[in-house]
Formats: sequence, structure tokens, C-alpha cells
Amino acid sequence: MPAKNQKLITLEIKSLQAKSLGPQALTAKELNELAPRVKKMVQTIERERQLGRHRYRDLPYDKLMIRQVRELAKFYRPKVNNLVVLGIGGSALGNIALQQALNHPYYNLLDQQDRSGPRLFVMDNVDPTLFAGLLDLIGDDLPRTLFNVISKSGETAETASQYLIVRDLLIRKLGSKKAAGQILATTDAHSGTLRTIAQQEGYNTLPVPDGVGGRFSVLSAVGLFSAALCGIDIEDLMHGAAAMDQQVKQTALLHNPAALFAAVNYLYYQRGRVMSVMMPYSNALYSLADWFRQLWAESLGKRYDAAGTQELFVGPTPIKALGSTDQHSQVQLYREGPQDKLITLLEVDKFDRDIKIAKQLPKVKALAYLGGATLGQLLQAEKQGTELALLASARPCLTIRFPRLTPYTIGQFIYLMEAATTIAGSLFNVNPYDQPGVELGKKITYHLMGKKGYEKMPRD
Amino acid sequence: MPAKNQKLITLEIKSLQAKSLGPQALTAKELNELAPRVKKMVQTIERERQLGRHRYRDLPYDKLMIRQVRELAKFYRPKVNNLVVLGIGGSALGNIALQQALNHPYYNLLDQQDRSGPRLFVMDNVDPTLFAGLLDLIGDDLPRTLFNVISKSGETAETASQYLIVRDLLIRKLGSKKAAGQILATTDAHSGTLRTIAQQEGYNTLPVPDGVGGRFSVLSAVGLFSAALCGIDIEDLMHGAAAMDQQVKQTALLHNPAALFAAVNYLYYQRGRVMSVMMPYSNALYSLADWFRQLWAESLGKRYDAAGTQELFVGPTPIKALGSTDQHSQVQLYREGPQDKLITLLEVDKFDRDIKIAKQLPKVKALAYLGGATLGQLLQAEKQGTELALLASARPCLTIRFPRLTPYTIGQFIYLMEAATTIAGSLFNVNPYDQPGVELGKKITYHLMGKKGYEKMPRD
Repeated sequence: MPAKNQKLITLEIKSLQAKSLGPQALTAKELNELAPRVKKMVQTIERERQLGRHRYRDLPYDKLMIRQVRELAKFYRPKVNNLVVLGIGGSALGNIALQQALNHPYYNLLDQQDRSGPRLFVMDNVDPTLFAGLLDLIGDDLPRTLFNVISKSGETAETASQYLIVRDLLIRKLGSKKAAGQILATTDAHSGTLRTIAQQEGYNTLPVPDGVGGRFSVLSAVGLFSAALCGIDIEDLMHGAAAMDQQVKQTALLHNPAALFAAVNYLYYQRGRVMSVMMPYSNALYSLADWFRQLWAESLGKRYDAAGTQELFVGPTPIKALGSTDQHSQVQLYREGPQDKLITLLEVDKFDRDIKIAKQLPKVKALAYLGGATLGQLLQAEKQGTELALLASARPCLTIRFPRLTPYTIGQFIYLMEAATTIAGSLFNVNPYDQPGVELGKKITYHLMGKKGYEKMPRD
Repeated sequence: MPAKNQKLITLEIKSLQAKSLGPQALTAKELNELAPRVKKMVQTIERERQLGRHRYRDLPYDKLMIRQVRELAKFYRPKVNNLVVLGIGGSALGNIALQQALNHPYYNLLDQQDRSGPRLFVMDNVDPTLFAGLLDLIGDDLPRTLFNVISKSGETAETASQYLIVRDLLIRKLGSKKAAGQILATTDAHSGTLRTIAQQEGYNTLPVPDGVGGRFSVLSAVGLFSAALCGIDIEDLMHGAAAMDQQVKQTALLHNPAALFAAVNYLYYQRGRVMSVMMPYSNALYSLADWFRQLWAESLGKRYDAAGTQELFVGPTPIKALGSTDQHSQVQLYREGPQDKLITLLEVDKFDRDIKIAKQLPKVKALAYLGGATLGQLLQAEKQGTELALLASARPCLTIRFPRLTPYTIGQFIYLMEAATTIAGSLFNVNPYDQPGVELGKKITYHLMGKKGYEKMPRD
């Protein structure tokens, strides 16, 4: 169980009511008008959960799955120096985000005894230079490298190609029997191409849960196995998600951070703020902003309404940024460009490690103010400086505050954003769980690659 | 000199005239109408170059600077295992982009004998966890670590803080004399805080050129030193830039790729496409998309017109994406969301390394089409599939094509984008070289950190 003193992350919208925002401020009237609609949506979602919808919401309570992931991680831990995830999109982003959020920033570069598990490589592209580079690195360590192939169907072209290369390499170098021991298939529990292959070849497997789309799968075996093997406390992560579940069930808009995040984004989108920037002041959180980018874009960017009848061509564009780095890249545009963005800042109250800036160079007066402060204090001052500067130029922004970065708070954040996405789907009146727009590109690729059944150039 | 058979990168806009785009297509009329204006702009820019403006355009010909960078790299090469760049924004992005574009994808993880230089760390944030992590890594290797402090003034709070920490650490561990030998200051050639410090402390220095803003400085010592020390052929890079200079001097719109890129972006912005997505199908090019993101946003995102009198609140928002990875994250939105984006795809014709996909698993028919192809072919098919799918849903996109990825073509690309930014500045009628919008945030940070002269909360 998480320690009692572990706190919740909080969503702070008070800056949205700053006087300097003028007509760009969020009004109590807007929120009050939306509150009854949102209340009904939250109630509907909770009712639908009982009927088996929104299945990702139940993942934190799947003790069997958590135990299975932990046991398999324990089994492989003494056997492997490298874990390579072969996956793309929802099969990759959660793995990357958990690792960057919760492990050492230079984890793969640490000596083995300083790491909490094997090196982790997430191959989320088929760039040949990248893949060849990975094989360089693995080199003679191939017998101690585990490949986790993640694909619900097994037919994702990128992942399947990588798998075919790896399988061939392993068999050539190590023989069929040993090869099979170094591939783990994370796939549909019952059917599909990868499930069939895994049975034929005798791979260990983990399940991709039914009814949970790729972008909502980070808290399933899809995202958890690499985290567990690399030493992240996935139980604490799940406790955090479960704690957030209590928050995002609340029917009162102002007490439900998922509903509030969705509502604020929805209201500002209606006012022409077509971009939603997520800007963590923490490198550890940057890949979570990238993970959110898929969640928000693929769930809300839709041609048709939820009923599939009316054309909407709707959807905010999520943008990842990094503080304070992007103050020197994007903030000029954010402050002086068009009024087309809503900015969510992520702030960390207490970093696990901090560094004091030396009081030195007495002759250099221009830098004297820095001496004695810490980098963490500077980063927080940069965040506040940017926030106040944005408000001064009437740019709305809000803050998600992390007391600390721990599995418990990261689990909360993931669950918060997922729950917000479902509610935003209702507000935008779209189906947040499909992605029909990606099919044509896949089919044309099949055609170009000569796949059977795709001899004619697909048109839709 | 570059080999004669080295080809130029090309800008392809034929997809913008695809029939399926309907009213979203680019018309010959639009281009023809803009051509005379653009012709005058290019002529004006060339004239102004003679008067000392647009100084970044002359960097490829600065043989003295190139020699100085190469010689200093040669001097340090046998002495260092780690190069740490302390810089942010324009002092960091070019370093990162050149390294990712032209060195091994896992360069820092390679054994020393397999690398073309020291490990490279670009510290472009003051995240305390990140910085503490870096110090973990360096550990006992501190005597063989060079810190390149890059700041024109030396007063950038982030860089100055890092510098103060590093200086103190070096002096405590190695003594003052040895410490000074491990700091290199890249700063204003004549004045400023860091120049003064460098003189006092006896550091080696490199110049930040006069009249070249941070975001245009990658082809100066700012971006070139880390590249040279890590084994990148900076002469070839500069030859590439110079070759592109010949192209972007052309006054005919259709023969000038910088003018054409600027014009197309401008025309579509006027039509409501407020986002400009750059989506390379190559991991090596991803950080160049991030570099471009600063260039485009900070140069064009402006409140006032070039004369400083009329309020515009103008500027496209540049977005980085990655093919094929983001097909599984963003393409749903790009195809089905609002008509608010212009998408530039970057394609590589020939990868230096490629990997054949094994013909295996005869029983698994669903994957048979992949066997015998290469990853490079698949990546290209993914790009074409996405391009055709975008066009089918009336989403305009264009392509920048790289024959190969070499210093020569990367130099071209950098120069192309920089020249395009200047022309885009003229089209949008803004000053592409200032960034007044970042000042207030800096001042508020000074206030919060207790800097002398900032006792009152700054208002503008």
C-alpha cells in the first residue's frame, strides 16, 4: 500500500481567471452552464463501466494481470541485460513514458550494477539506420537480450517486420530452441496472427486486454512489463491510478479533475484555441506529454460525430513542449502569436535530487543572485515567470502540480488524462476509442509492398 | 571539396496540386501572383547582405572560423572522453540536431573505440534530476570532461547556473588551474559577462558571431564545435550550405526552394492553416525538425509588424512529428481533424545501412508480403501510403527529399530552412531576428530569484 502521506496531484485553474486575461478568462458562467452536462456524462460513464465499456478504467484493479507481469519480470530479471520492445504507437509510448518518468535520466548509460534492471530499447520505428544501430549495440550480448513483441493482432507492418528480422537473427545465431526463449509475445489473449505464431513457436506471452485500445493500454501488460523489469514499482503505479479513480468518479465538475481538464479544453477549443500545449517543467515528464499527444489526438481528432452520421472534422491538436527549454524556442510565439493555444504547465513541487548553485565569482555581480539557490528553485521560478508573462499577454494557462515524481503520482497522472479523454470525447461528441483515419494509409502501404488482396490501389 | 556526384536535396510541391485536394490545392494563380513580390524580396535580401544584414548567410564562407573550430577540436580530441554543452535554445538545438543527423543513433552507448569522438551531452535545461544524473555518469571521468559554456552574454540564467555549479565542482575536485583547462567559453568575441569571466579565469574561447541570432547560429562555432569534436565533417557541411546558397539566391520563385517553402507556408497560413508540421521519415532528422521548430516559431510569431507600429499577432505554429511512428499517433487527427495544417514530409532516398526482412514463417501467410523487402523500402512505402492517404482526404502536403544523409545534404537543409525563414519574415511582414516576447518572463524570473535591480515585480 502507498504511504499515507503520499499526496495527490492537483489541477489548478485559478490562472484561467486572472484579471489580465480580460475576455480570454474562463468565466464561472461557462463552467456552471457545462456542469450539469458533465455530471450526466460522468454518471453515464460509470453506468457504462458496469456494462463492460471503458475497460481501461478497470486495469488498476486487475490483480491477476499485475501478478503475472511481476512474476514474468522476476523470471527474466537474472537472465537479461537488454530488453528490446518491438512496438509502435500505443505499444511503445507508454513504455517510453514510464521509463523516462521514473528511472534515472541516463539509465541505459549507467553501469549494470547501478541500474535497476536491463537496458531498455523501445523500437518504435522501422528506420533502418536506427535498427542497424541497435544490432551493433547488442552485438555479442544477443544471448542475454529479450525481445518483447507487442501487437494486438501481430499484423502491424512495422512491428511484424522487426519481429521477422529478430527471429531470423536469433535462430541463425543461437538455434531455434534458444531463440524461442528470447522472444516474448504481448498480444491478444485468444486469437490473431501473433497469438498463432507464439503458440507455434512456443513463446512466453502476455495478454493485450480485450476492449482496451492501444492508446489506453499503458496500465496493462503492454506498458507494465518493461517498467517492472526495469525496477519500477508497478503496484504503486496502480495504487496511484486507483486513487485517481476515486477523484474522476466525482460528478461535481469542480471536484473532478478529469472532467475539469476536459471541460476547460473543450470550452477554449470552442473559442478558437485549436491547440492544447502540454509543457512540463521536468525532463522526466516530457515523454508523458508525448504519450498524451497520442491519447488526445487519436481520440478526439474525428471526421464524424459519435453516431457516425454527421461530419464534424473536429479535434484539438496536442503539442508537447518542455520548460524551461522551450522558453527559448516557443514562448515568443505563445505570447505574441495568434490567440490559438491553451497551455497546460506541469510543475513538480519537490525533486528527489537537487543541486545548489555555488556562490562563487564574487567579482561577477551579474550572476550573484543565482548563488545559494538550487536548480530546482530556478526551474520553479522559470515556470512562474513564464506563467505570469503568459497571463500578462492574455494567454490562458493552467497547471497540473505533482507533489513529487513517484510511481504513485505518475499512475495518477496517467489515469487522470485517460479519464479526461473519455469525458472530452463526450463533450466533443465523438467516439474516443476508434481511429478510422489511419486505415487508408495502411492499405496503400500494403498495396505498395505487394500484400495479397491489395493488388489494386485502395481508394478508401 | 564534396564529391561531384553529391546531389542536392529537393523541394517537391507537386502533391499540393493533386486533384483530390479540390479547393485545398495550391493554384498556379496564387504562386504567380506572389512571384513578383518574392522576387523583390530575394533581391532586397541579397542587397542587404552587402550592407551587413542577414549575417548568418555568410557563415559557410568564414574559413577562419571553420579553421579555428577544427583546430580546437583537434586540440581537445586526445584529451576528452565527454563533451558537455551548457547551453539552451539556439545554443543547444543545433548541437543536438547535427549529432543526431550525422552520428550513430546510439553514439553515446558505443564503446569508446567505436565512436568518432567523446560522448556528447547537451544540457539544455536546469532540471535538477537531469543534471544530477549527468554528474553521476561523469563520475571519476571528470578530469577527461570538457564543458563548453555557450552564451552570447553569459547572463542566460539557466546556462549561468550550470556553469557556476560546474566551475565549483571542477575547482573542488581538480584545483583552479586544471579546472580552467576544462572549460571552453563560446561567447561574444569582445564583451559581456562570459567574455569577462573567460579572461579572468583563463579559459579557451570560441566566438559567437556578431549579428547572428542564436537560432541562426548552428553553422557558427556555436553549433560546429561539438560536431567537429565528435567526428562530423564540418567542411562538407559548409560546402552543402554554400551549394544551397546558390539555390536560394535565385529570384524565380519556382527555382528558389527557400522562397517556395516560405511562399507555400505563407499562402496556406492565409487560408487558415495555422500549423506547419514537419514530419521526417528518418529518426536521424527528427532533431532537425525540433531545430526548425525554434527557427520558425521565434522568427515568425510576432505581435507587431516589421516597422513595429501595427499589431498583427501573427505566426504559424511549427510542429515536429516522426514518420512512421506518428502515423500511429497523429495521422488520425491530421486526416480527419480540422483543415488547419500544412504538412512537410522529409524523405530519404537511400539509407547508408539497410536491413532485409527475413523470408520465414511460411505458415503465416499474413506476413508473407514483408519477406525479402528491406526496412528502408517499408519506411518509404509508409511515407507514400501516408502521403496518398492525406491527399485522399484533401490534406495538402509537400516533400523535401534527401538523396542521402550526409554532412553535405544536412548543410543544405539547414541553410535552406534559414533562408526560407528570412523570406517568410518578409512575407509575414515581421522582423524575423528579434524575440521581444521572451523578455518579460526572464525579468519575472530575475525578480523571483532576487536579482538586483528587479526588486519590484516587472509588468512589461
